[in-house]
Amino acid sequence: MLIKEIKGGVCAPQGFKANGVHCGIRKNKVKKDFALIVSDVRASAAGVYTQNLVKGAPVVVTKKHLTDGFAQAIIVNSGNANTCNSNGIEIAEGMCSLVEGVSGIASDDVIVGSTGVIGQKLDLTPMKAHIAELYDGLGDRSTAAAEAIMTTDTVKKEVAVQFVLDGKKCRLGGIAKGVGMVCPNMATNLIFLTSDVAITPQMLQKALSVDVGSSFNMVSVDGDQSTNDTCCIMANGLAGNTEINSDNASFKRFAKALNYCTVKLSKMLAKDGEGATKLIECTVTGAKSLKAARTVCKSVIKSSLVKAAMFGADANWGRVLCAIGYSGADVDVHKIDVTFISRAGEVKVCEDGYGLDFSEELAKKVLTEDEVTVLIDLKSGNFKATAWGCDLTYDYVKINGDYRT
Amino acid sequence: MLIKEIKGGVCAPQGFKANGVHCGIRKNKVKKDFALIVSDVRASAAGVYTQNLVKGAPVVVTKKHLTDGFAQAIIVNSGNANTCNSNGIEIAEGMCSLVEGVSGIASDDVIVGSTGVIGQKLDLTPMKAHIAELYDGLGDRSTAAAEAIMTTDTVKKEVAVQFVLDGKKCRLGGIAKGVGMVCPNMATNLIFLTSDVAITPQMLQKALSVDVGSSFNMVSVDGDQSTNDTCCIMANGLAGNTEINSDNASFKRFAKALNYCTVKLSKMLAKDGEGATKLIECTVTGAKSLKAARTVCKSVIKSSLVKAAMFGADANWGRVLCAIGYSGADVDVHKIDVTFISRAGEVKVCEDGYGLDFSEELAKKVLTEDEVTVLIDLKSGNFKATAWGCDLTYDYVKINGDYRT
Repeated sequence: MLIKEIKGGVCAPQGFKANGVHCGIRKNKVKKDFALIVSDVRASAAGVYTQNLVKGAPVVVTKKHLTDGFAQAIIVNSGNANTCNSNGIEIAEGMCSLVEGVSGIASDDVIVGSTGVIGQKLDLTPMKAHIAELYDGLGDRSTAAAEAIMTTDTVKKEVAVQFVLDGKKCRLGGIAKGVGMVCPNMATNLIFLTSDVAITPQMLQKALSVDVGSSFNMVSVDGDQSTNDTCCIMANGLAGNTEINSDNASFKRFAKALNYCTVKLSKMLAKDGEGATKLIECTVTGAKSLKAARTVCKSVIKSSLVKAAMFGADANWGRVLCAIGYSGADVDVHKIDVTFISRAGEVKVCEDGYGLDFSEELAKKVLTEDEVTVLIDLKSGNFKATAWGCDLTYDYVKINGDYRT
Repeated sequence: MLIKEIKGGVCAPQGFKANGVHCGIRKNKVKKDFALIVSDVRASAAGVYTQNLVKGAPVVVTKKHLTDGFAQAIIVNSGNANTCNSNGIEIAEGMCSLVEGVSGIASDDVIVGSTGVIGQKLDLTPMKAHIAELYDGLGDRSTAAAEAIMTTDTVKKEVAVQFVLDGKKCRLGGIAKGVGMVCPNMATNLIFLTSDVAITPQMLQKALSVDVGSSFNMVSVDGDQSTNDTCCIMANGLAGNTEINSDNASFKRFAKALNYCTVKLSKMLAKDGEGATKLIECTVTGAKSLKAARTVCKSVIKSSLVKAAMFGADANWGRVLCAIGYSGADVDVHKIDVTFISRAGEVKVCEDGYGLDFSEELAKKVLTEDEVTVLIDLKSGNFKATAWGCDLTYDYVKINGDYRT
């Protein structure tokens, strides 16, 4: 199956328009803070959300609006997470009503997201004042939307692909913002995906729920899980394929295209982690189960000591072994091989749980690259998994320690 | 019951002698790296160890030697963790044999510990050359032993108390080194306790196993669990009390004295965390269960975002709430109160899960102190717990990123 990367982000699929403007929630007047994505027609919709017991009001409202499996628009603000506020639900519903007011789309067909400071009341006034401008400017402006949802992100995150189902050209696009639990007070991973594929809400939810297990749930910046994490997808059927309503060949193709986009966005989120200087990919092979494979690579990616060593380009494989050992996964510690890989080469540092003599010079070269893979072979089974993270740097501490000073 | 702090560390109890010397495992000739603690008579002994699947050879050997519940000496080196080495067991046994050689104490009555770099072979030669010097110098030298087990610790950690059982003056002392998973490559929490109380091995093990649940297991520096963590205690009975052989009043008194020492050492370990500028104590009250109370305060103490905010003296209570929310504990998020406390005052920042208006100036003053308490009231039950940690600083990243460069 051919998956081809194309331009256009969330506007690549037929019948989707987007926009992003500055409405004034953020004081920085250059930074857009208000985004809208609209489908020409009502679309199948699905979502996955933070497991944190403390949930932002937008998460509660979006879940409610997606109960029937359909949506037509996504409204998002940055600069305030609308979380831990006594009037949060009312404000989140208010944002959806603003969309209904300008577009006629029923407010319960609107997905809502907020990201930024928590515990400070979100005022609808600036959004009311700019909703018409936001709506009137809708067009092929995925990038404006991607920019408007950014908080401490240093780069916008967009992706789109094209593929074929039933001889029809189909597209899937997405935008995302990160990066872990982020500054100001805390923030959010927000991911919004669009597609013109025809698929039932049930199958769309299934595709998304399975997908995040190998994509966004495998990303860690600092191990903290935000109150507002949300990933939503709308699929409006305008590609004209036969509607996917079972776990058939078309579903599998769609799932592949989805995974291409979500993995790409996952890597972008990890690489742009707060203060990060490099992307760390950890691949585990030879695990006894998928769960063990995922548990091990997430434990390694999350270890502060591994992350700090990566910042220093220090081949401290002992820390990798240690993070495997306390992960809780069922592994045989006397079978573990560890190899560091990057475009500068590869160096095996540990075999059967014991250290190898290796070239420190080569290891330094390998680890100095801005994308490094830690390959762990558990040699105990046939399961594998990959997780993505970043290094721990002075800037992470600076960003998260100094915000309000 | 009166527990009085006294001097003397592990040599405060009757019949214990200690020493620490430089034998040459470490290149720095000023730093002691070889420690010995000996009891005049064979003592009841108990231990708790790392749960990491990757275990240092000394952990394996100590466990084996304590199977019968008795020991008479503790031998420890710093500078090399003797972990992930193919000949590790042989070397750890060899260290115990060195003790037997100079003292006549059976090698399987010796507890052994190692801390420092992992994956590099540990050579017995320097220890062979200095074991006589170490043994001959035994005396009231707890401090020398405390210094010899330090790695990146910036201060030695010693404590001792005196209390009364059956009208007999009893003593309990301890030394410790930290601090989390530590540099060079990784290291260890090592804690060695001594007492002159008469107690059966079974009751001693019970006291220690219960105790660590509210002391050393509530300390987090970076969330990484070392391969070599070990806490051992010897009790030689020379105080002359009636031997404790059940869960009686004397047992409870002994457990209290033990907890006094272990909590004191726990705070020292947390405050001296790598790069730390302050001790963070998190106390949770009103929990539905002890497990929930412990889970919540450990989650808060471990959060990189909370730790970074504490470094910046930033009253980011949202991060505290977030860490509670993802802890996995059963809490009602709409009942949570959060207060920051230090010797500069206290400031309540969150009530019933919503933010309060508070003085940023006062909050800054409170959080700028070098010992800060985060008090969380869950208002849902009668259980409470306390955990200790430290802030996340530039120096943590520096220490752990730059070691081998």
